[in-house]
Amino acid sequence: MSKGTISILGLGAMGSAIAARLRETGYTTTVWNRTPAKTQPHVQAGANAAATIAEAVQSGDIVIAVLLDHASIHENLEPAAAELKGKVLVNVTTTTPNEARATAAWAAEHGITYLDGAIMAVPQMIGGAGSRLLYSGDENAYAIARPALETLGTAEYEGTDAGLASLKDMALLTAMYTMFTGVLQAAAMMRTVGVPAVQTAQDVTAWLNAVVPLAAPTVAVVDTGDYDPAPGQNVDFTNAAVTSLITAAREQGISAAHLEPLKRQLDELAATGRGTADWTSVIEQLTINR
Amino acid sequence: MSKGTISILGLGAMGSAIAARLRETGYTTTVWNRTPAKTQPHVQAGANAAATIAEAVQSGDIVIAVLLDHASIHENLEPAAAELKGKVLVNVTTTTPNEARATAAWAAEHGITYLDGAIMAVPQMIGGAGSRLLYSGDENAYAIARPALETLGTAEYEGTDAGLASLKDMALLTAMYTMFTGVLQAAAMMRTVGVPAVQTAQDVTAWLNAVVPLAAPTVAVVDTGDYDPAPGQNVDFTNAAVTSLITAAREQGISAAHLEPLKRQLDELAATGRGTADWTSVIEQLTINR
Ligand SMILES: NC(=O)c1ccc[n+]([C@@H]2O[C@H](COP(=O)([O-])OP(=O)(O)OC[C@H]3O[C@@H](n4cnc5c(N)ncnc54)[C@H](OP(=O)(O)O)[C@@H]3O)[C@@H](O)[C@H]2O)c1
Ligand SMILES: NC(=O)c1ccc[n+]([C@@H]2O[C@H](COP(=O)([O-])OP(=O)(O)OC[C@H]3O[C@@H](n4cnc5c(N)ncnc54)[C@H](OP(=O)(O)O)[C@@H]3O)[C@@H](O)[C@H]2O)c1
Repeated sequence: MSKGTISILGLGAMGSAIAARLRETGYTTTVWNRTPAKTQPHVQAGANAAATIAEAVQSGDIVIAVLLDHASIHENLEPAAAELKGKVLVNVTTTTPNEARATAAWAAEHGITYLDGAIMAVPQMIGGAGSRLLYSGDENAYAIARPALETLGTAEYEGTDAGLASLKDMALLTAMYTMFTGVLQAAAMMRTVGVPAVQTAQDVTAWLNAVVPLAAPTVAVVDTGDYDPAPGQNVDFTNAAVTSLITAAREQGISAAHLEPLKRQLDELAATGRGTADWTSVIEQLTINR
Repeated sequence: MSKGTISILGLGAMGSAIAARLRETGYTTTVWNRTPAKTQPHVQAGANAAATIAEAVQSGDIVIAVLLDHASIHENLEPAAAELKGKVLVNVTTTTPNEARATAAWAAEHGITYLDGAIMAVPQMIGGAGSRLLYSGDENAYAIARPALETLGTAEYEGTDAGLASLKDMALLTAMYTMFTGVLQAAAMMRTVGVPAVQTAQDVTAWLNAVVPLAAPTVAVVDTGDYDPAPGQNVDFTNAAVTSLITAAREQGISAAHLEPLKRQLDELAATGRGTADWTSVIEQLTINR
């Protein structure tokens, strides 16, 4: 017996993985893709194919959209607004928080129950233990779609603001790219004395395993706002350390561009009499027009 | 029976921990500190105190210097060069690689066997399982001092260039501060929707635990130089992702300053026809005057 009907819009790498997983876990699936040839393997495996989005939407109680970006979502879904009315639309396409909010407002106008999603996994991980997806928006939509969504990976509901899942996605990806950038900066420095990048990355990995657990205790002071005197390293100490790091990079002929924004923020704190404050108070420098 | 005689110069937080550990593991220690009062607890516990550096140096086969910075090392050690002649000098004061090289050159001129060190630990960790110290410089000095140094923590010898231990220290600290900066950036973004910094840091920690192990495989392409076509994410994909992260931050009123250097490097690669190259090729943008 089918667990329910789900239409999947978009059969790129991610949409294909999602469609396959839902089919394999017992859902009746209907698939649509701009380039129709990609529906073939899905049809052979038991899915229905739809020639248009409007047709696809009609055969699913839940519609999961996995297109490229915000523009492709609007270009394709707006003409099918009438058919989407009354359906649960789960959009896991990567967008910014405000784009998600705009889609939620558009859905509300058209009587569509909207849930936004963000995928913290690559296609091969979908359905596996390490797969994690974030959702936000309509609570009812989450309640209805949840059993299906939980087959894709751990499901986390962030709240009714449709932008929250994207925001958390973006926050986590920011931390990831920043971490990778630090690894590349370290590798660039060590390459100047002939150390292979992989070896530096392994050294850095071991070191990050030791210091990443310090992140939560280090930022505890941010939630109290009691920065001065510093419970941890203060601005002056950290500024001296970061200055040494910049000097060391330049001595080896390596750009210190990645560290310069932090240095500017620490300088600004020091120049305004906050040298004895906790260095994590640089977070207060990040708010624009404060 | 004493394991040997060691003089420790500098009894700040780190020097005190080192002096205590060496004494407790069976070495005859002589301590000196600019502010003499700090020698008191050490003398009570069995150390000898010296009134001058020259005197301290004479009573140890090995001399360990733990002062504030490069300037304090030279100010204090240069007058004692004659007494240091023939001794093994281990300088674990934090300096840049070129400062370490300058001290090594000075030591060579004065017949001092010089080993530079970098401490990847806080004072409370000295002697414990997580303590790790890096050394570089004279191989003989390392061979002689090694049994004593191993009581402080895991000892790693990086090579004869005295700057190597500092360089690796700086590379690891760069990766650490960069990672912490990413956590703060994520926390700043999530604070705008009321999520406490500690909660974001915990979320980021879980995510980093999943992605830090990808660092070494991700940079493998750097060692081959075969960036195009990209074995991993290419420049165009990463540029689109980073642009979204910058947009998401700004939409929430948060500065994207920390991501802008990476964005500039990706733009430069894209503008010079390298959009399909692996994004880790930004490492090639880091070499100054390439
Ligand atoms: N892959 C991952 O690791 C990953 C991880 C997390 C999140 N995501 C997100 O998941 C979404 C899909 O990613 P993917 O990896 O599946 O990408 P992909 O393999 O490049 O597939 C893109 C899909 O979007 C469709 N598409 C693109 N532009 C379109 C348009 N203007 N109109 C209609 N359809 C259009 C494509 O149709 P055609 O077949 O006709 O080109 C294809 O189905 C993206 O938002 C991505 O950021 C992906
Ligand atoms: N603490 C850590 O977590 C840590 C970790 C890794 C590396 N390190 C490095 O270890 C070294 C010592 O750090 P620490 O934590 O022990 O610092 P600290 O507690 O501030 O102690 C500094 C020491 O340097 C002495 N000193 C400073 N300026 C001097 C001068 N001009 N002439 C003579 N002595 C001077 C101080 O003497 P007075 O007592 O007379 O002021 C004191 O003994 C630094 O290079 C630091 O970067 C520390």
